[in-house]
Amino acid sequence: MQKGLLTFLIFGIISHNALAQNDADVLFLKSIHNQSLTESKCYGWLERLCKEAGPRLAGSEAYDVAVSVGQDILKEAGAVNIYLQPCDVKVWKRGVKEVAYYIDEKGEKQYLHVLSLGNTIGTGLAGITGKVIEVQSLAEVDNMADASLEGKIVFFNRPMDATQLRTFNAYGGAVDQRGSGLYSAAKKGAVAVLVRSMALANDDFPHTGSIQSIEGAKQVPAMAISTNDANKISALLKEQKELSIFMRNTCHFEGTKSNYSVIGEIKGSEFPNEVIVVGGHLDSWDVGEGAHDDGAGCVHAAQVLQTLNALNYKPKRTIRCVMFANEENGLAGGRAYAAATTGKSEKHIAALESDSGGFVPRDFSFDADTSVFKSYLKKVNTWLPLFESYGLQYKTEGSGADISPLKPQKTLLIGLRPDSQRYFDHHHTTNDLFSTVHKRELELGAAAMTSLVYMIDKYGLQ
Amino acid sequence: MQKGLLTFLIFGIISHNALAQNDADVLFLKSIHNQSLTESKCYGWLERLCKEAGPRLAGSEAYDVAVSVGQDILKEAGAVNIYLQPCDVKVWKRGVKEVAYYIDEKGEKQYLHVLSLGNTIGTGLAGITGKVIEVQSLAEVDNMADASLEGKIVFFNRPMDATQLRTFNAYGGAVDQRGSGLYSAAKKGAVAVLVRSMALANDDFPHTGSIQSIEGAKQVPAMAISTNDANKISALLKEQKELSIFMRNTCHFEGTKSNYSVIGEIKGSEFPNEVIVVGGHLDSWDVGEGAHDDGAGCVHAAQVLQTLNALNYKPKRTIRCVMFANEENGLAGGRAYAAATTGKSEKHIAALESDSGGFVPRDFSFDADTSVFKSYLKKVNTWLPLFESYGLQYKTEGSGADISPLKPQKTLLIGLRPDSQRYFDHHHTTNDLFSTVHKRELELGAAAMTSLVYMIDKYGLQ
Repeated sequence: MQKGLLTFLIFGIISHNALAQNDADVLFLKSIHNQSLTESKCYGWLERLCKEAGPRLAGSEAYDVAVSVGQDILKEAGAVNIYLQPCDVKVWKRGVKEVAYYIDEKGEKQYLHVLSLGNTIGTGLAGITGKVIEVQSLAEVDNMADASLEGKIVFFNRPMDATQLRTFNAYGGAVDQRGSGLYSAAKKGAVAVLVRSMALANDDFPHTGSIQSIEGAKQVPAMAISTNDANKISALLKEQKELSIFMRNTCHFEGTKSNYSVIGEIKGSEFPNEVIVVGGHLDSWDVGEGAHDDGAGCVHAAQVLQTLNALNYKPKRTIRCVMFANEENGLAGGRAYAAATTGKSEKHIAALESDSGGFVPRDFSFDADTSVFKSYLKKVNTWLPLFESYGLQYKTEGSGADISPLKPQKTLLIGLRPDSQRYFDHHHTTNDLFSTVHKRELELGAAAMTSLVYMIDKYGLQ
Repeated sequence: MQKGLLTFLIFGIISHNALAQNDADVLFLKSIHNQSLTESKCYGWLERLCKEAGPRLAGSEAYDVAVSVGQDILKEAGAVNIYLQPCDVKVWKRGVKEVAYYIDEKGEKQYLHVLSLGNTIGTGLAGITGKVIEVQSLAEVDNMADASLEGKIVFFNRPMDATQLRTFNAYGGAVDQRGSGLYSAAKKGAVAVLVRSMALANDDFPHTGSIQSIEGAKQVPAMAISTNDANKISALLKEQKELSIFMRNTCHFEGTKSNYSVIGEIKGSEFPNEVIVVGGHLDSWDVGEGAHDDGAGCVHAAQVLQTLNALNYKPKRTIRCVMFANEENGLAGGRAYAAATTGKSEKHIAALESDSGGFVPRDFSFDADTSVFKSYLKKVNTWLPLFESYGLQYKTEGSGADISPLKPQKTLLIGLRPDSQRYFDHHHTTNDLFSTVHKRELELGAAAMTSLVYMIDKYGLQ
């Protein structure tokens, strides 16, 4: 720590706040990090969640297992007032294994690496065959003549922008193809869509993920195709103008079901009605193990409570861990949580979500209602030098999906932002596995979150 | 980029230099990053080095292959004046596969995961059996009575300190056991030493690495043992006071040989005699593929030249790529390079080495002779805001082994410091593989180096 301060001095890039930090805070943040790197339980918890519940889509039996594991984790974290908060989720089923292939020059089937997109409809067992039309954007389809895509399969193939340093920005610039491409295609008569996977690497993993929900809009079946296969199809289309692909899936909805967010807390000693939420989402897609997305976030959040308890820290405010239900294909858990706060005497002063993977922490990203954001930032800025000495920076690029419904309550919303370079190698794929999470990186994420929660609890935001 | 500057403003943590940056530099650094993330060759080069040369210890035939691959890489990078610089290396051979085991209660051999330390002597084919004495430090051995370890195997088992954020600091705090433990043990009559691997993870990979060279000091054979096995042996010793281990290896030296550093450059247009070195070391240990240590550094350095050429940048100063020979067990390449500069009209103004892995870049670490360091720092500090917008910071914690002999020339020495959390999962093991290097992380390291070289070239250090 002294070395960190010394570095500030040597380089002259020093905020006037750096030397005003309370030594007790410097020491406590060091204790939090020491504890997290030597005694934390989050890595073992994540293994249990990944191996026992595994992939745990909303409405699945696996999600019920995850709820049970989540409760155990909160007990081990020393949380009190552990309870389950219900929400209604639409039950979407992938059905039979999806298939897509084309017939090559030798008459042989060439199977493609595909995954149906979440919440899509199916082709039915008979499947669909259509000529493939490659496009780069929704606008390209929207500008086509009516019925010009009759009977066609539209192949959205705009890659994520590799020049974006933060890969989530590259994702944001491409994901409209996954979310809404099928609606544009359906309007022009297409029978199905294939969407280039949301990934920067060239590999064989198709990436699922939800389509947008647009009430009453005409849909067609939609699948993600791996980046390697997307490149292959694109090359084939350049060689031979006509390429037909067969697609089959039986995705469908099976009504609604109650699912549960898992909640527990440490009660505040001075201001028990002031709540600081830490959370992640307990559901995942129905492939892989939901390790980075978002088992990591759930165990990060539980670790905040466990570390504060282990250090015998008695918070002034209530620190509440929420493992949200149904983030991936509905956000019912986040909405139910925010709705349940109305009419209560509690005030949610801050909410911190980890839903960007279990990699080494780099930034906190802040968001809040504009009426209060400036004053919150002024306060948290006074703490920045403390975090900089742990390699952490601030950003203002959103927070987390599950906590965003709290925004009207003037809650300070915060997203943990781990290093993003590897995230889209795993996101929504069979490759989102516990074995790809690094123990120390996970622990450092929990330490970062615990440190910020400690500062907010101790000093408030006014 | 504008977003980056905006963030500085919003948060008020802004250096007075931030707004003084030349827009041309902002744009050129963006070009460097765009080029590096879309068109760079370093990942393919690294694959070739790892797969064709593989593990390439000084004096081995594989090292000669690496020299050939290194020359090809420099040609592809568009370097001119490519040449080989000789140095004399001691040829150390691992000999037969090393073995260590104990006999369990059932009379069965329990093999341990071990690797002989580099430059160690061997037990001979007959092997050595000794009772194991666990110690935590050299001091503990040094304080023992003379001859008190007669016939014993000393087991150095102090773990790396998990609470160190930068894992290289944890390494620095434990590596004396590997470097010098055998000398302390030999003085007290021990017959061999086992050293807990320099790793933070609990796994089955033993980590080799060099012992110190101490002329005339008595040696005994030394092996690294995996962290899992170190924990196992320590637990056994707690249960039963006496545990004997058998060790066998046939490590030995086979004279000296000429090895070659591989050198190429872009000639400076205004000040051709002012040299900026970028480098890594071409040799590796004789296990794994030398991917992170230090194939990554070699291709980083070559990528600097290739990117500047691709962007048609004509440097004022000479940018020279050096792939150093024999870093791992002798430093003959680095010493020969520095020695060869004497008497020449060239002035080495800066040297930047990448020898800390191919992970996402986090920091530049600066070092220089105290007579000039302060003024250099003043200069480079004016550029910090440019680098901060790419998530890069400055430190003053050394540079690189190969470039350190240039220090008396008042050269600014710089080490690239990628994120260190995963490094000691791979360092000096069979797990230092190309497959563990992430393409974008490697490319971002090259982009960071290219950016700093561009700034030094353009503005100098005065």
